Amino acid sequence: MIKFGVIGYGYWGPNVVRNLDHTDGCKVIAICDKTPASRKRAQKAYPAIPVTSQAEELINSAEVDAIAVITPVWTHYELTKAALEQGKHVFVEKPFTSSVVQAEELINLAVKKNLKIMVDHTFLFTGAVKKIRQLLKEGSLGSLYYYDSTRVNLGLFQHDINVIWDLAPHDLSIIDHLIPEIPEAVSATGQTHLNGVEDIAFITLYFPNKIIAHINVNWLSPVKVRTTLIGGEKKMLVWNDLEADEKIKIYDKGVDVTSQQGLYNLLVNYRSGDMWAPKVEQGEALSQELAYFVDCIARDKVPFNDGASGMRVVEMLEAANESLRKRGALVYLRPQQRPAPSLSSRIELEETSTCKP
Amino acid sequence: MIKFGVIGYGYWGPNVVRNLDHTDGCKVIAICDKTPASRKRAQKAYPAIPVTSQAEELINSAEVDAIAVITPVWTHYELTKAALEQGKHVFVEKPFTSSVVQAEELINLAVKKNLKIMVDHTFLFTGAVKKIRQLLKEGSLGSLYYYDSTRVNLGLFQHDINVIWDLAPHDLSIIDHLIPEIPEAVSATGQTHLNGVEDIAFITLYFPNKIIAHINVNWLSPVKVRTTLIGGEKKMLVWNDLEADEKIKIYDKGVDVTSQQGLYNLLVNYRSGDMWAPKVEQGEALSQELAYFVDCIARDKVPFNDGASGMRVVEMLEAANESLRKRGALVYLRPQQRPAPSLSSRIELEETSTCKP
Amino acid sequence: MIKFGVIGYGYWGPNVVRNLDHTDGCKVIAICDKTPASRKRAQKAYPAIPVTSQAEELINSAEVDAIAVITPVWTHYELTKAALEQGKHVFVEKPFTSSVVQAEELINLAVKKNLKIMVDHTFLFTGAVKKIRQLLKEGSLGSLYYYDSTRVNLGLFQHDINVIWDLAPHDLSIIDHLIPEIPEAVSATGQTHLNGVEDIAFITLYFPNKIIAHINVNWLSPVKVRTTLIGGEKKMLVWNDLEADEKIKIYDKGVDVTSQQGLYNLLVNYRSGDMWAPKVEQGEALSQELAYFVDCIARDKVPFNDGASGMRVVEMLEAANESLRKRGALVYLRPQQRPAPSLSSRIELEETSTCKP
Amino acid sequence: MIKFGVIGYGYWGPNVVRNLDHTDGCKVIAICDKTPASRKRAQKAYPAIPVTSQAEELINSAEVDAIAVITPVWTHYELTKAALEQGKHVFVEKPFTSSVVQAEELINLAVKKNLKIMVDHTFLFTGAVKKIRQLLKEGSLGSLYYYDSTRVNLGLFQHDINVIWDLAPHDLSIIDHLIPEIPEAVSATGQTHLNGVEDIAFITLYFPNKIIAHINVNWLSPVKVRTTLIGGEKKMLVWNDLEADEKIKIYDKGVDVTSQQGLYNLLVNYRSGDMWAPKVEQGEALSQELAYFVDCIARDKVPFNDGASGMRVVEMLEAANESLRKRGALVYLRPQQRPAPSLSSRIELEETSTCKP
Repeated sequence: MIKFGVIGYGYWGPNVVRNLDHTDGCKVIAICDKTPASRKRAQKAYPAIPVTSQAEELINSAEVDAIAVITPVWTHYELTKAALEQGKHVFVEKPFTSSVVQAEELINLAVKKNLKIMVDHTFLFTGAVKKIRQLLKEGSLGSLYYYDSTRVNLGLFQHDINVIWDLAPHDLSIIDHLIPEIPEAVSATGQTHLNGVEDIAFITLYFPNKIIAHINVNWLSPVKVRTTLIGGEKKMLVWNDLEADEKIKIYDKGVDVTSQQGLYNLLVNYRSGDMWAPKVEQGEALSQELAYFVDCIARDKVPFNDGASGMRVVEMLEAANESLRKRGALVYLRPQQRPAPSLSSRIELEETSTCKP
Repeated sequence: MIKFGVIGYGYWGPNVVRNLDHTDGCKVIAICDKTPASRKRAQKAYPAIPVTSQAEELINSAEVDAIAVITPVWTHYELTKAALEQGKHVFVEKPFTSSVVQAEELINLAVKKNLKIMVDHTFLFTGAVKKIRQLLKEGSLGSLYYYDSTRVNLGLFQHDINVIWDLAPHDLSIIDHLIPEIPEAVSATGQTHLNGVEDIAFITLYFPNKIIAHINVNWLSPVKVRTTLIGGEKKMLVWNDLEADEKIKIYDKGVDVTSQQGLYNLLVNYRSGDMWAPKVEQGEALSQELAYFVDCIARDKVPFNDGASGMRVVEMLEAANESLRKRGALVYLRPQQRPAPSLSSRIELEETSTCKP
Repeated sequence: MIKFGVIGYGYWGPNVVRNLDHTDGCKVIAICDKTPASRKRAQKAYPAIPVTSQAEELINSAEVDAIAVITPVWTHYELTKAALEQGKHVFVEKPFTSSVVQAEELINLAVKKNLKIMVDHTFLFTGAVKKIRQLLKEGSLGSLYYYDSTRVNLGLFQHDINVIWDLAPHDLSIIDHLIPEIPEAVSATGQTHLNGVEDIAFITLYFPNKIIAHINVNWLSPVKVRTTLIGGEKKMLVWNDLEADEKIKIYDKGVDVTSQQGLYNLLVNYRSGDMWAPKVEQGEALSQELAYFVDCIARDKVPFNDGASGMRVVEMLEAANESLRKRGALVYLRPQQRPAPSLSSRIELEETSTCKP
Repeated sequence: MIKFGVIGYGYWGPNVVRNLDHTDGCKVIAICDKTPASRKRAQKAYPAIPVTSQAEELINSAEVDAIAVITPVWTHYELTKAALEQGKHVFVEKPFTSSVVQAEELINLAVKKNLKIMVDHTFLFTGAVKKIRQLLKEGSLGSLYYYDSTRVNLGLFQHDINVIWDLAPHDLSIIDHLIPEIPEAVSATGQTHLNGVEDIAFITLYFPNKIIAHINVNWLSPVKVRTTLIGGEKKMLVWNDLEADEKIKIYDKGVDVTSQQGLYNLLVNYRSGDMWAPKVEQGEALSQELAYFVDCIARDKVPFNDGASGMRVVEMLEAANESLRKRGALVYLRPQQRPAPSLSSRIELEETSTCKP
């Protein structure tokens, strides 16, 4: 029975507590939040669980086995570090940290202490992402051409982070999960209109093999859009996460280049065939993710959404931010940072683990 | 009665001939196309109009008053120049030319000869763009924040131009028409997958006053999308050009910043009110555009979609292409190229002209 | 403080308990369900509330002021009657009873005992229905022409009632709420395919003044549809209850008959103007309904969704069922059953009550 | 070379002439319309074809082989009869005639004269209907449960016929084509609001084997809807004719009744699997239909959309109208009118004919 302390009971924390409460093999034994109103909500919902304003109480408690850090990003490093130092496994909200430097330190600390870090990339546990990953692994789409996501709405304005750090981690973690290649470089543009942080931004990721990814994030859209186009050599798909039923539509459409007699004589044929919307698993992603975390701790497995995965996302965020400041100038990702070993272990993990999503 | 010679009877040429045929004050007296099959189609549709394979016959004909150049972009400069030299007014397909240098030469030649150039930015004559322009001019949206267009589908692959030169002129001419400011700089990213020209690209335009524009063009999308988000301080709109009826939806949604006590204490209020879809004029845009051209010739008026307008679009295309080659690096637009006089004449024109769209 | 006993903790009961739990002026002091699994769920969610399998315990308890009957329709009469006899107010799931005869008996009993009956016509408390009612009362739509609802999906099969008794009460209660006239007659058609009760049915209601209503209900539809067209002389609206944001769209469309020189010379003009989607209140309807019930008890007011309202719906259901058996044959509603006094009290109520929805 | 005379050049006639003009094996040699404006349009579009106001000129012309009757329904009988008497084949607009009596007389006359009648049930030649028919014949949907069509919009008001005669022939001809059984009885309801003919109506058709069909037609809808749900034992489909690409969606959804231990113990299982949108043929239906007519004449084949097919539709229309007058009362179709021989010939035809749709 793994005993959890949950730090942060604002917007997402209640979902973490509720799901841990329903997960076998674990229980929540303490909740912490700085805000009195949040503590009051926690107390009312879980009368049997002690609630505190002091994170140290949870981190230093001998009874706690694992800490869930569900707080603003600028607090992740400090809280996670303290928890690891006290020998606790950590489930931490995305994005993992505010910098690659912080992420590296935490990863090394966890390795030294033989503790697990899981970064809450919840989307990786949705039926939609699992189905898309399966299609890509099976080769149904053929070689990947592009990933193009639009993630916009009249959003909650953040004050400490811009729209990239707020909304792009979803797509960046999905891209990291779906595309085996590591991106080479990033270009990002955007603008700030209201409160000093960018509220609209556009990110391009260049990958090897001519794969390109693009992310459109915007806090100032009148309509909510969650649509991703994924184009492959053989097939293409549209993932509309706002659809209740047909989230993923796969199109038997494409282009065949049949002859190469110089550019002007190139024969391009268009294919247009059936469309197919596979049934997508419906369960709550966070529930599966937390069960997977508990299982990884219990069986001493490295989760695929571990600290290294979190760090790769943070590296892309840092690069995007740097490019944004330079109005689109290309920023290269550091090759030495690419965690090749982790990638292979990631793949191996999924083959052997029974608790994989 | 203005007598037209139409060069090019491929995809778009038949629409130009058909609309000129229904426009008062003009008639088509000759059609030219290099391709025998196109000439055959023209002959069958218009038995009374002579059809030739030699553009010179039209350009040199003493009877022809105006030439419509509806041919690939790389032929525009040469054909337009020859026509102007022979004293003909020119209606030329977008994009105007392959370079700003060519555009400048043609503009100067037309001025010297006192001839009209109209660049076929058809979208400016649609009910949707006219309605959006009216809303912006009236101030209904408040200060403009952004223009964000997605224009993708499984498109006709071009061999001589990339997806930016093929699809972006629509948005660039609309942006030029809607936004009084001239963009400062461009960043563009993209990728080529099939035949040596970019088939997917993303363009960001930086304007003064924190206005930002973004254009997503893609020949490899499984679905056709023609959606533009326009965000303003007061209201925001969505223009979905594929909707039969409700093309423009205006949302009484927005953000009010009510207090500025440092970044962390900023109070942001969200507004969410009614949505409104105004009735949009339904007539064929090309028909109105050609009637406007005939009227500009007859009454010696400068069209607002003149050579200068076409040149501004070409300058943005050139800059986007340069940035694309440099993978997002910012390319400044040359301030000296910004045709301030033309802009003011443009505004004046519209106030006085009765044939404005 | 009104003390509730809730009978029935299956699909809808938990929502009633949760909302009563958040309503000022009342509390749930006992829950009853026949099914052990449901009792277990109730106990886990509300450890402090006693849970029983015996409805009599709640009905006979001196502490209970009001009973919520959230059970299958065939049990409503018996449970409600027992509760009224024990001096309890009753909130009862729709449809009110299995027959008009039962409904009348319960209404008379409640009057005699001076107790309140509220029938859970939840939809009347949604923002959408409130907005439509307001538009009709203001005369925005002009004289009403028709109400046409489609309410289909791959539904939960019921064994004791057919698709009309399962799905049509929603529309019938809305129609009763929106249209001041009482329907004259009903025609219904349908078919049974699987388990002996009709799974697809079509109901037409004839009203005075040429108003017509139609309801399409179907348990065997591959897609969920919740769309109602409402046509009036001046304007028409579409209510799509599955839309997250724009549930109601009002069209400035219509037909003007300008001249009546015999049928063949009739001049009909079409109007087509703007579309408008008003902001619709978002709160949970059941929460408002229960607060209204508590207020009606506390202030001794007759709720507009009282027993008489529930009986009018049951009468339409009975008539529809009879017509269904006769394959569409017209069944007249009994004029003497039309509760004219209740209607006027209903109107008066809404003007004076501060707790009206 | 079959020579056509086309009577009627209003809304639909121009499409018939244009398609005949592009069909091999035939040509239009005369056009007739009573209205001067229509004759002027015809003359402008086809300068080489003589245009007249006198239908007799075409009907009596020795050069004409076949007459297309594209006029209001009340003229069909007289014109078709005259044409048959003069030995002409007839292509006649739907609905075939104003009554079954008229239809029978024309069918008998055509048989006697060995002439072809084709009723213009254009929808039967669309890719969508052909695909649905194929799915039903293959048994992909399993036993048919229901056909439920909504065909509404702010329509062109007719003065001589009501909304059933205007819009329902489409669905009735499709139903006749898709469902091998002949309906037993009809119930119809509706209302008239403006000009003395019903502008909204609902038709139910009862078939053997518990198949039920329903048609919702309305001239007073603010939005255009063309959606048909078709439910079968194995699969269900949605045909949305307004979709550009994915007109037909087939759902692997359904209900399995696994046990029948009395009504209350019935176990119903829901299946929910993939959705599939097959590619649907895109060509113009009318073009295929006219080519089929020419082929049937040339090869002396009986078209499947012959007079008998047209008469079955007229019989359903007459019955629906009678029921409508009686406000839903069931009207039986006359068994002796069911053209069993024609049905078998219809099936045989399609197997052997190479020009079948």
